[in-house]
Amino acid sequence: MTLLSALAGDDETEALLTDAAQVKAMLAVEAALARASADVGWIVSAAADAVSDAVSRFEPDWAGLKEGMARDGVVIPALVRQLRALVAEEHRAALHKGATSQDIIDTALMLQLVPIIDLFENRIGDLCARLDHLAREWTDNPLMAHTRMQVALPTTWNAKLASWSDPLRRHLTTLTGMRRRLLVVQLGGPVGDRASFDGHGDAIAAHMARQLDLGIATPWQTGRDPIVEFASLLALISGTLGKMGADIALLAQNEVAAIKLEGGGGSSAMAHKANPVRAEVLVALARANAGLAGTMQQAMVHEYERSGAAWTLEWLTLPQMLINTGASLRLGMELLGQIREG
Amino acid sequence: MTLLSALAGDDETEALLTDAAQVKAMLAVEAALARASADVGWIVSAAADAVSDAVSRFEPDWAGLKEGMARDGVVIPALVRQLRALVAEEHRAALHKGATSQDIIDTALMLQLVPIIDLFENRIGDLCARLDHLAREWTDNPLMAHTRMQVALPTTWNAKLASWSDPLRRHLTTLTGMRRRLLVVQLGGPVGDRASFDGHGDAIAAHMARQLDLGIATPWQTGRDPIVEFASLLALISGTLGKMGADIALLAQNEVAAIKLEGGGGSSAMAHKANPVRAEVLVALARANAGLAGTMQQAMVHEYERSGAAWTLEWLTLPQMLINTGASLRLGMELLGQIREG
Amino acid sequence: MTLLSALAGDDETEALLTDAAQVKAMLAVEAALARASADVGWIVSAAADAVSDAVSRFEPDWAGLKEGMARDGVVIPALVRQLRALVAEEHRAALHKGATSQDIIDTALMLQLVPIIDLFENRIGDLCARLDHLAREWTDNPLMAHTRMQVALPTTWNAKLASWSDPLRRHLTTLTGMRRRLLVVQLGGPVGDRASFDGHGDAIAAHMARQLDLGIATPWQTGRDPIVEFASLLALISGTLGKMGADIALLAQNEVAAIKLEGGGGSSAMAHKANPVRAEVLVALARANAGLAGTMQQAMVHEYERSGAAWTLEWLTLPQMLINTGASLRLGMELLGQIREG
Amino acid sequence: MTLLSALAGDDETEALLTDAAQVKAMLAVEAALARASADVGWIVSAAADAVSDAVSRFEPDWAGLKEGMARDGVVIPALVRQLRALVAEEHRAALHKGATSQDIIDTALMLQLVPIIDLFENRIGDLCARLDHLAREWTDNPLMAHTRMQVALPTTWNAKLASWSDPLRRHLTTLTGMRRRLLVVQLGGPVGDRASFDGHGDAIAAHMARQLDLGIATPWQTGRDPIVEFASLLALISGTLGKMGADIALLAQNEVAAIKLEGGGGSSAMAHKANPVRAEVLVALARANAGLAGTMQQAMVHEYERSGAAWTLEWLTLPQMLINTGASLRLGMELLGQIREG
Repeated sequence: MTLLSALAGDDETEALLTDAAQVKAMLAVEAALARASADVGWIVSAAADAVSDAVSRFEPDWAGLKEGMARDGVVIPALVRQLRALVAEEHRAALHKGATSQDIIDTALMLQLVPIIDLFENRIGDLCARLDHLAREWTDNPLMAHTRMQVALPTTWNAKLASWSDPLRRHLTTLTGMRRRLLVVQLGGPVGDRASFDGHGDAIAAHMARQLDLGIATPWQTGRDPIVEFASLLALISGTLGKMGADIALLAQNEVAAIKLEGGGGSSAMAHKANPVRAEVLVALARANAGLAGTMQQAMVHEYERSGAAWTLEWLTLPQMLINTGASLRLGMELLGQIREG
Repeated sequence: MTLLSALAGDDETEALLTDAAQVKAMLAVEAALARASADVGWIVSAAADAVSDAVSRFEPDWAGLKEGMARDGVVIPALVRQLRALVAEEHRAALHKGATSQDIIDTALMLQLVPIIDLFENRIGDLCARLDHLAREWTDNPLMAHTRMQVALPTTWNAKLASWSDPLRRHLTTLTGMRRRLLVVQLGGPVGDRASFDGHGDAIAAHMARQLDLGIATPWQTGRDPIVEFASLLALISGTLGKMGADIALLAQNEVAAIKLEGGGGSSAMAHKANPVRAEVLVALARANAGLAGTMQQAMVHEYERSGAAWTLEWLTLPQMLINTGASLRLGMELLGQIREG
Repeated sequence: MTLLSALAGDDETEALLTDAAQVKAMLAVEAALARASADVGWIVSAAADAVSDAVSRFEPDWAGLKEGMARDGVVIPALVRQLRALVAEEHRAALHKGATSQDIIDTALMLQLVPIIDLFENRIGDLCARLDHLAREWTDNPLMAHTRMQVALPTTWNAKLASWSDPLRRHLTTLTGMRRRLLVVQLGGPVGDRASFDGHGDAIAAHMARQLDLGIATPWQTGRDPIVEFASLLALISGTLGKMGADIALLAQNEVAAIKLEGGGGSSAMAHKANPVRAEVLVALARANAGLAGTMQQAMVHEYERSGAAWTLEWLTLPQMLINTGASLRLGMELLGQIREG
Repeated sequence: MTLLSALAGDDETEALLTDAAQVKAMLAVEAALARASADVGWIVSAAADAVSDAVSRFEPDWAGLKEGMARDGVVIPALVRQLRALVAEEHRAALHKGATSQDIIDTALMLQLVPIIDLFENRIGDLCARLDHLAREWTDNPLMAHTRMQVALPTTWNAKLASWSDPLRRHLTTLTGMRRRLLVVQLGGPVGDRASFDGHGDAIAAHMARQLDLGIATPWQTGRDPIVEFASLLALISGTLGKMGADIALLAQNEVAAIKLEGGGGSSAMAHKANPVRAEVLVALARANAGLAGTMQQAMVHEYERSGAAWTLEWLTLPQMLINTGASLRLGMELLGQIREG
């Protein structure tokens, strides 16, 4: 954890996105591919066992993986080479059979997203519960509404809190509904048409999906819209929390004093200050994610049957969006723990 | 139509986004609000008739509307003033009663989006039909696949065409599914809590929805996620078409010659050229919309009960995204009419 | 002028960016090219006269130009065809000789930018003068400073006003300094190497520069950095004004009341309000331009000797940035005319 | 170094951006502030010695710094507290005297940028030298030019290589020219007006500048344009390299074969392939930086005398841009080492 991530990162999300977590997911996909290939009779069962066994004993040579990543643009050729050394020679051809790097990498990403989505759903649920709790506590309490940065008319805390929780509830519904179409196996083979699986492609994909608890889909190696749509949802989530942060920073102004923040941030020069640090960071994360959501949209222009350029652009973008979103949800909860009526 | 819009715009979409179209939609909302207010007994029926009558006779004084827009940041105060002059004095208080500018403007936007979504659905349907037709015609024809900009392995036109139509079909499903939660009445009153409607707010909103053939929703004046999510979908649509454009420009390279484009663009200096103009414009529109989708996400940070800054940012962004998307769909169809196997 | 441009556009800037203004600039470039070609002895002087004469008599057939634009992706082939009809047959080959569409379009853009930069320099100068005037008037007056949205310590209006004018002064210096390297002739011929000018390319470019009062440069048809750097400066200008707008909206809050705005925007529902409309629009324009500056950066990836995709992306972006910047400068000045000490 | 940074990162740049590097720079600023305060007679010389001595003996308690960062939104209060414990009680008040967190953080960033700019200048120089070398080697060799993705006319390698090196040379000039106005001391005190330095502010800033080998400037805590302009230049650099990458990927297409890449990336499924990995990553980095440049522009809207939101947004953005740019320059050089004529 860096200094910056202590402020604007999220330990739990970051832990789900380490190299170790990614390689673990990739190994699970290789094992599932072998098992599924055996299930449908394309490789012998002993070969699938051999792959599973190799996966269970595998210790990555990180230097070698990094070298391969730098050379090949994907880590899979080096990873498969290392893994293959643990498989008895007679079964080596069964490892990664018919597959291409993207099958493993995209499916592994889906596996990594599962606990991240779990985490985000839980946190959104907690936020909504906390907002509902505040709504019950403060429901009759008056609040001056402001429109266009000017005093408007009195309203209630109920309405204000609903303006924060209504969108979160919509995001939760969308996120849960998105699981089915987002969290699916990628299996296409070298050029994405499953031709390398000798007619077993659809069946292998279905078996893999069952084993990995993912959905099935036609190959989507160039159809990145589900991932980009998911990225857009991440920005909506951090955007809603950015709106809440902006509101809280405004309501906590000394001159407005509609709320107070317990444990506000200290200043090196002005001892009297209680800065709305988390509220401000929520705004910053919202704006950072907004920009990254636009960059993810640029990755839609995915040329030919696989674009190294557009795909790498996703890698440079999506993990940071996940961390920003995890951080937003963490900070949103912490901030709600700080606010008191003014 | 400007020179640029002749290339990269879309007449039909632009016609649905003129000032006249917007004012017409706003007037429809004012009429529906009055009618709904009468339906629930909050104003007398004769007043609703008077408003309807004024709406039907209304001729905007455009100079006055522009002056009001520049002064107030919204056109509604000036529009209501002009409209009110056509209402008999006894019924004037019934016009716009309880409402705020945003109620009218946001609901009018929803009315404008209905035919635009119709248009886009039709065009996506036509594109899918055309791609399916090509798939039937070319299904057995071989095509060399390329990954990471290098020759990979032979594939089929079927797989290629599916990589263009599968995402479009997903977009169509999402677009249709989004109607219900996007196309809803906005009714909140000055600070968005419906307090100005003396307890009739929910009922008036429901009646307005029925009359305007929109859905109902709690006030969403600061919860902009449905609009931003819609904008993200627009970028996905143009992004998918940008991917198709990039593919076609690559496949039509003289050295690749997997396809030819009939009626390619001419050059002022090189008579032999047949430029893949529409394919290139599809890429440009995809990238423009991608950037604008990021800007729409910035508008999520909508401070207090109404942010003039964030809301104006939507106005500066969404119409252009709609035109870009309409243009993408138009150009995509024209481009598919140009391609021949190489 | 649309309703939206009445609020957030700028008549003067828009007038410099019409189709008519662009075609006029293109014609000037064609005339200068012919004259320069005659000056260096590559065409006969009578041919240059014939081109000048045709240019002076030219009336565009707009429908034909739009048709050509849609077909060719650039208007020049159609424009040259129309213009050529006015040139005596013996001199027709001299028109557009050696040139490509991009030579005319890019150089015409430079001609259009000259008065726009003049306008922006004048407006920035006026803004600085107005801020200096306020600084002299209010210099001793106290102002409470705020950091991180909390009351900090007393400061002076002098410091606040300098925080608005210092960056503007830097922008003015940068803008003026940029003229020399931005406002240059584009002359490359079909593939940008001046080979089409039979060895006269450098001399013709130099003569054109002199006639058009532009600088000289090697061909830059794929080196778009000066234009993108200029776009970035536009965003800096509107960004500085967005900061001023945000400050003014905060200082004009009823609870802070450090300033008042005379002639604030009215509300359709709350007669007591004086909304800081121009301040908010400044923030919106800053954010819109910020996003567009990112899109212009995407256009740096300009493939091969001319990218229709990247170039069209500039056209979809830069004019709007110019209008946004012009509108920011206009609104900034109007807003400074509205503020009074609180 | 993560797997992704092995591909798309840069060790040297990352090493200059670690927490340790940042804290070291912050300590240097605190020492220089104390020394400068002594030089002008505002604190006693022994106090400056005591601060220097504490700085030289300082070992950060990282856990404490992270805790402080999370609480205060800036690390300085915690850092100063830790550092102060090493200073004899009589001199403690001299540490950080008159300063605010931002003075230390912004000035420390400038110190960190110095070696990064050195590195980038060297790398751009190396790239230009390499391109010039290729130009001498290949100068007479023909190359088919392409415009709008179609074969155009023959050109020379000279022209192509100049289209890559000309913009780099412009970037080098701009980067070097930017040092003077970018690399300046930030000194403003709590609200940025130097009032906290009892009239010694300008002199202290000048002495600090001399000691730290930075330039002098009026306080710029809210005037972020030099940093955003620098970020824009970073995107221009990676954009130019993205254009080179796009060109090389196109020229290395099997069907075009104008160049070959020695040591192209391997595929896990297709042994015959030599993927233009570095060329593709250059495109990805260009697009990532383009998006981030837009996000930096959003940070221009820096409200009041210090915006935690806008400032944090810079921290979330600029370091990644520096790494992306360093990686682009590294990969560009490696890629030029790989290309051979086809």
